[in-house]
Amino acid sequence: MGATSFLRRLLGSGQGSLDRPVHDLLSLCESLLSESGEYASVALARNALAAYEALDARLREEFFDVLARHYSPSPEAVSAAASAYQAEPSPENLLKLEDAVEPARRELFRRLNMAPGGTAALIEMRRQVLKGVRTRPLWRGIDADLMHLLRSWFNRGFLRLERIDWHSSAILLEKLIQYEAVHAIEGWHDLRRRLEADRRCFAFFHPQLPDEPIIFIEVALTRGMSAQVQPLLDSRAPLAAPQKADSAIFYSITNCQEGLRGISFGNQLIKQVAEDLKREFPHLRRFATLSPIPGFRAWLEKNAGRELLARIADPAWHLGDVPEELQKQLTRLCAYYLLHAKQDGEPLDAVARFHLGNGAVLERLNWMADSSEQGVARSAGLMVNYVYWLAELEKNHERYVHEHAIAASSVVEKLAKDHAAEPSKGKVA
Amino acid sequence: MGATSFLRRLLGSGQGSLDRPVHDLLSLCESLLSESGEYASVALARNALAAYEALDARLREEFFDVLARHYSPSPEAVSAAASAYQAEPSPENLLKLEDAVEPARRELFRRLNMAPGGTAALIEMRRQVLKGVRTRPLWRGIDADLMHLLRSWFNRGFLRLERIDWHSSAILLEKLIQYEAVHAIEGWHDLRRRLEADRRCFAFFHPQLPDEPIIFIEVALTRGMSAQVQPLLDSRAPLAAPQKADSAIFYSITNCQEGLRGISFGNQLIKQVAEDLKREFPHLRRFATLSPIPGFRAWLEKNAGRELLARIADPAWHLGDVPEELQKQLTRLCAYYLLHAKQDGEPLDAVARFHLGNGAVLERLNWMADSSEQGVARSAGLMVNYVYWLAELEKNHERYVHEHAIAASSVVEKLAKDHAAEPSKGKVA
Amino acid sequence: MGATSFLRRLLGSGQGSLDRPVHDLLSLCESLLSESGEYASVALARNALAAYEALDARLREEFFDVLARHYSPSPEAVSAAASAYQAEPSPENLLKLEDAVEPARRELFRRLNMAPGGTAALIEMRRQVLKGVRTRPLWRGIDADLMHLLRSWFNRGFLRLERIDWHSSAILLEKLIQYEAVHAIEGWHDLRRRLEADRRCFAFFHPQLPDEPIIFIEVALTRGMSAQVQPLLDSRAPLAAPQKADSAIFYSITNCQEGLRGISFGNQLIKQVAEDLKREFPHLRRFATLSPIPGFRAWLEKNAGRELLARIADPAWHLGDVPEELQKQLTRLCAYYLLHAKQDGEPLDAVARFHLGNGAVLERLNWMADSSEQGVARSAGLMVNYVYWLAELEKNHERYVHEHAIAASSVVEKLAKDHAAEPSKGKVA
Amino acid sequence: MGATSFLRRLLGSGQGSLDRPVHDLLSLCESLLSESGEYASVALARNALAAYEALDARLREEFFDVLARHYSPSPEAVSAAASAYQAEPSPENLLKLEDAVEPARRELFRRLNMAPGGTAALIEMRRQVLKGVRTRPLWRGIDADLMHLLRSWFNRGFLRLERIDWHSSAILLEKLIQYEAVHAIEGWHDLRRRLEADRRCFAFFHPQLPDEPIIFIEVALTRGMSAQVQPLLDSRAPLAAPQKADSAIFYSITNCQEGLRGISFGNQLIKQVAEDLKREFPHLRRFATLSPIPGFRAWLEKNAGRELLARIADPAWHLGDVPEELQKQLTRLCAYYLLHAKQDGEPLDAVARFHLGNGAVLERLNWMADSSEQGVARSAGLMVNYVYWLAELEKNHERYVHEHAIAASSVVEKLAKDHAAEPSKGKVA
Repeated sequence: MGATSFLRRLLGSGQGSLDRPVHDLLSLCESLLSESGEYASVALARNALAAYEALDARLREEFFDVLARHYSPSPEAVSAAASAYQAEPSPENLLKLEDAVEPARRELFRRLNMAPGGTAALIEMRRQVLKGVRTRPLWRGIDADLMHLLRSWFNRGFLRLERIDWHSSAILLEKLIQYEAVHAIEGWHDLRRRLEADRRCFAFFHPQLPDEPIIFIEVALTRGMSAQVQPLLDSRAPLAAPQKADSAIFYSITNCQEGLRGISFGNQLIKQVAEDLKREFPHLRRFATLSPIPGFRAWLEKNAGRELLARIADPAWHLGDVPEELQKQLTRLCAYYLLHAKQDGEPLDAVARFHLGNGAVLERLNWMADSSEQGVARSAGLMVNYVYWLAELEKNHERYVHEHAIAASSVVEKLAKDHAAEPSKGKVA
Repeated sequence: MGATSFLRRLLGSGQGSLDRPVHDLLSLCESLLSESGEYASVALARNALAAYEALDARLREEFFDVLARHYSPSPEAVSAAASAYQAEPSPENLLKLEDAVEPARRELFRRLNMAPGGTAALIEMRRQVLKGVRTRPLWRGIDADLMHLLRSWFNRGFLRLERIDWHSSAILLEKLIQYEAVHAIEGWHDLRRRLEADRRCFAFFHPQLPDEPIIFIEVALTRGMSAQVQPLLDSRAPLAAPQKADSAIFYSITNCQEGLRGISFGNQLIKQVAEDLKREFPHLRRFATLSPIPGFRAWLEKNAGRELLARIADPAWHLGDVPEELQKQLTRLCAYYLLHAKQDGEPLDAVARFHLGNGAVLERLNWMADSSEQGVARSAGLMVNYVYWLAELEKNHERYVHEHAIAASSVVEKLAKDHAAEPSKGKVA
Repeated sequence: MGATSFLRRLLGSGQGSLDRPVHDLLSLCESLLSESGEYASVALARNALAAYEALDARLREEFFDVLARHYSPSPEAVSAAASAYQAEPSPENLLKLEDAVEPARRELFRRLNMAPGGTAALIEMRRQVLKGVRTRPLWRGIDADLMHLLRSWFNRGFLRLERIDWHSSAILLEKLIQYEAVHAIEGWHDLRRRLEADRRCFAFFHPQLPDEPIIFIEVALTRGMSAQVQPLLDSRAPLAAPQKADSAIFYSITNCQEGLRGISFGNQLIKQVAEDLKREFPHLRRFATLSPIPGFRAWLEKNAGRELLARIADPAWHLGDVPEELQKQLTRLCAYYLLHAKQDGEPLDAVARFHLGNGAVLERLNWMADSSEQGVARSAGLMVNYVYWLAELEKNHERYVHEHAIAASSVVEKLAKDHAAEPSKGKVA
Repeated sequence: MGATSFLRRLLGSGQGSLDRPVHDLLSLCESLLSESGEYASVALARNALAAYEALDARLREEFFDVLARHYSPSPEAVSAAASAYQAEPSPENLLKLEDAVEPARRELFRRLNMAPGGTAALIEMRRQVLKGVRTRPLWRGIDADLMHLLRSWFNRGFLRLERIDWHSSAILLEKLIQYEAVHAIEGWHDLRRRLEADRRCFAFFHPQLPDEPIIFIEVALTRGMSAQVQPLLDSRAPLAAPQKADSAIFYSITNCQEGLRGISFGNQLIKQVAEDLKREFPHLRRFATLSPIPGFRAWLEKNAGRELLARIADPAWHLGDVPEELQKQLTRLCAYYLLHAKQDGEPLDAVARFHLGNGAVLERLNWMADSSEQGVARSAGLMVNYVYWLAELEKNHERYVHEHAIAASSVVEKLAKDHAAEPSKGKVA
């Protein structure tokens, strides 16, 4: 924590030409850090957070710059501790090296967390750091510290899975409308349909964020595996009998907290929800997604033949009758894309990467499954069912990690093979 | 996380001569660590904890020995990362050094925490490590890792202050009876008196430990500052009217979780409780303790004159009339002890150290304030009122930390001075 | 309960030409009644309610007809018990008479209430009886029995006052939108504004109807006594600081349960809310309504001069500049209407009757206070502030009941007097 | 409500020589009744209850005397209404007669119920009335009114069944210890054993009495049907595995509210608990009681031969070896007692009456099943298993009601027959 005295000098020298509000905030941070841990005052933490929240965008940048520069470990102290350890690699010297390596920032954040609403404030702080980090590479250190702490505090053990339905509070439901990132919710009427008896909505919650979902998932209980998303999104769709459903279709999953980016909750959520649903509806035979293929169209633009691209250039190309041969061609291309377009050995498509990494199976491609403007623009209207066979997730995941092997149905594999064999102009190298 | 592959070798070689249950537990730990974080399985964590809990004492020691030896950072890896950083002290190299320095154990504990009941299990694990660490110095590394994580997870921001009363659940109240460490609670009848309308009991709770207090405090609402503890402990004491009280007497404070030893909650608890009581009873003028002086008698044995010790040697010395001159002598000695008996600059008496460090004032000594066997045996029957003046805590605490200055009333200071000036045989150098 | 055997004969004889579903329902009712009270089966009650709910409108009428005819006391039994009592007016004979007088229906309803959801079902049943009672005078007996039971079960002692805000469940909030009877709520956005920090909404709830308000009231915390309702209803109105408010304006009160018609909750609600608000905001000086005058315009049509009526005949008469003299004339007429237009000694205006009966003071008339279409059509745009002075409610209420005296401010009284003195053509006899 | 003006005269005349506190209480009651229902003030109700609760025993009697005499219907008014009805038995006249018949007391109680804690206060009031009613027959009217209202308010539909366990509040658990009427609970330790995993405890609660059980039942989950009660009551009994249980033994059922005497909850409770347990433990095959035979010994004293009585006269007769022949004789007598000792056609034994009336089967007699002092003194140490076969309860109950038929196992019937055939001196005519 040598940074502290450093900062004292910085502040004392007046060199900083710091703006007054930033100076005052840093003084509060200093006081907070100067206490020994157990005495660190909740009141001080609250005041510091309030001072931070009162800063405008420019002053925040100034504050982050100081945090990045002056609350990092001192290279001299780290070097000295490293040398001592190298000379004698004892447990004591290791602990000292660990201490020297930890930024004072991290302890500052731990103490800010003591304030009421502290955790939410730090998540918001990280959101702002992330927004600026591209142009301010030094802030990466701040991001790393917040990430380290938040990952620890949002350990799966601290999260509660809760069902969300029409008995939930308006303050929470309103956030679903606001956060939903996959298939926009058009107001309360639309939301209500998605919470009816033939649907389920679950979210992870953290005790410190009582009305804030961390991540939520929307599920439809259906007979058969859904091949189109519009019927699921239609707020006037007739109610189905959940007791007769044989499939649970995960049709939307949304991470809500930008400030928790990089901490993955989706895998845990899907597995837990599937297990819970299996318990409530023992007759469910299939847990599957109906997922977009967000990178397909962009990949096509780079890789498909000119003729094909010309045929789908018009935004209305999919309206009216689409020639069966074009359907086939696009579907095969899509299978090929999902199975063979790679980046560092993993699927190029982010959604495919997520579900296949989770151990799901690429089961089926669905033609014109999402006919919305966005669905056509990004995925040429196609969607995928990834199936979660609970008993095989582990094995598939292992093979994915170690061999980058993709579990796919024979139908999808055949489609990809057909594309490869095709002498067509749509062919992709 | 080089330790992992090391362990694989260890396990593979069969060299280990590990007992089967420990071997199986370590295999589970390996699997848990082999997953990338987001895939780490709750089920695996649960199984590992179950396997750990099934170990008997000897096997646990074996397990801890492996944890201590093989889940620590590899000296080679640390040295290499240290050298790289010394060669080029870039943020990237710092992060790599930090990674190299962190024991694999810590990540293992984070993942074990994912299991239901994980946090409680880790607290219990630390309790067992602490019991053995004196004879197994290597376990200090395990202790340090658990302490690091628990301190982070039991951040003040995650704790809830809750009042405990007769509406609380039996499962919780039973624990008060079991944990109370200062003035034993003699069953449900006794407990009930301590939760009546003229008393308050508060505890900190953590969301992961719903029926487990972390620390609790017992308060009596009184007219005047209590000078004797027996009336407060008498289960047949008449009920007082809390609206007429002018003082809140903290007469017992107990840390409940041995596995959280070293993480201090008392300071935060007292301050918060005082603030909350002030809000509920605006006419309260004084927040004070009635505290034991646990080290007084032992200190006397070493430092007082032979004649004095002879007079208090009989366990019944305090029964019947105690000569006023002996009272005076002991009271002065006690004042002297509290103000001048030091260890590393701080008061020798642990309770004094706690309250004075919190910024309280050593207000008054009370003769024969605890006439119980233990009270006489440890404190010669004396007790202290430490007063918490909310407005002065910060200042007193600061002076205590920086100058080891003790805030005491003039009466107590005079008593200590009188002792020093005394030509008596009881005198202490 | 002689009706029971009567019904058995009725059913047995087949004379009834009852439709099968009604016959089956009556059989269930018979079984339910045939048990002694303590054995009456919850399952039977549930089945009977389900059978009732499955009836269509015509069959329900058939069922009600049987209830009305055959579940009433038998005149012979009543006469006999009356004669016995007259011969010897002993307590025993009184109890027997009481038994003879009570319809079997009432016991049937008590037993139906045992089913889950029974209370809600009986409220709904009464709603349907009320709808038909005008054309089926015999149903008045059914109504009387349900009213008797519901009044007993919805005793003030069983109601809980609860605040409703944005933390309330969507299922509840949705009902506010649906029920609001005074100033329609235009969807969720509008509702949200009415639940912000400068507003309060309270409702009475009954333990058997967890998500159903019985009656609710909307309050605005304002500086000064509101003279216009549109600003209170504007969903984009800026947020006021509730700490600075000196008035609580009750601007809407809605009875939600048609099936509880005739059981008055409003008086109790207003008094309780005023007391609770006074506790939360001790600086509130005034509890007042901003109320419509629903009968004013209709009364004008009957009583005002032709010329005046001609001036306000155009639905747009109030747009643009209204001549001050017309304003005055209408305002005076309104004061006169409220103070002097009577029916059986009480004010003709239903809202005035309610608030004045509660002991409120007719404080102020507000010109163009409700410029909505309905406000102009029913009240010529005028609204009233009735003020609830907590210390005077009792006295005013007493005088209202015993002398039909109306508590009004001198200003309002003067307005009425001015009208009476006026030689104008608008004059009302 | 002619009684009211009557009372006014009574109070006015000063004739009453009423004590001042009773007079004041009656004035409050008068005020409460003088309001129309919707205006009746909660504050007035609270004051009246407080005034009532401040009365000592003698003044309460005075108050009850006035309630009994002057709040009953006036014979003249009843007679007049009766005559009017006889002259013209119209629905209107019936309603008028009903009004005339209802005592003003009942409305008074309805209004007292509006006060916070009103329901509990009325239950307590009835308890006191019941205590005195034997010597004050006039109070029967008060009792009847309270009974009428409480029966309506404690309708099964308003009761919640809740499980009680170690997570319940101390304030509630303490009441179990205090109320338990069948097998005394010897403090918290004993209670705890009765709430362990192999036991269940359920109670009915009413929303107005949140920490007060209405009735509770204790259940042991066992393998085989318990034949002795002491092992169930032993607080050191080893824990059984509830998953392996095939029987649920109801070994204690206690009505808690003396003021609700005569309103039966036991039947509903047992049926509901059996259904709930069946759902939680589908493998349970048998729901049975282990019940005392409280009237057996007293019946023996009157009916058995002198020789037999001599053999069991010594309170220690059952200690040591009891001759098999005496066992047989007593067991047969007991079977005979349960099957043939009658009062008005129903079993003489109150517990038998309750369970057989519920539709249970008299399954088995157990020798020395309750060896406690009370068990031997009242039941000669014998106990009965009554079995609740859910599917046959209805049928058995019907036969019991209509034919006074008792459902008993053939073994028990044989025992009774053997007794009848026996030429022994123990024989009972």
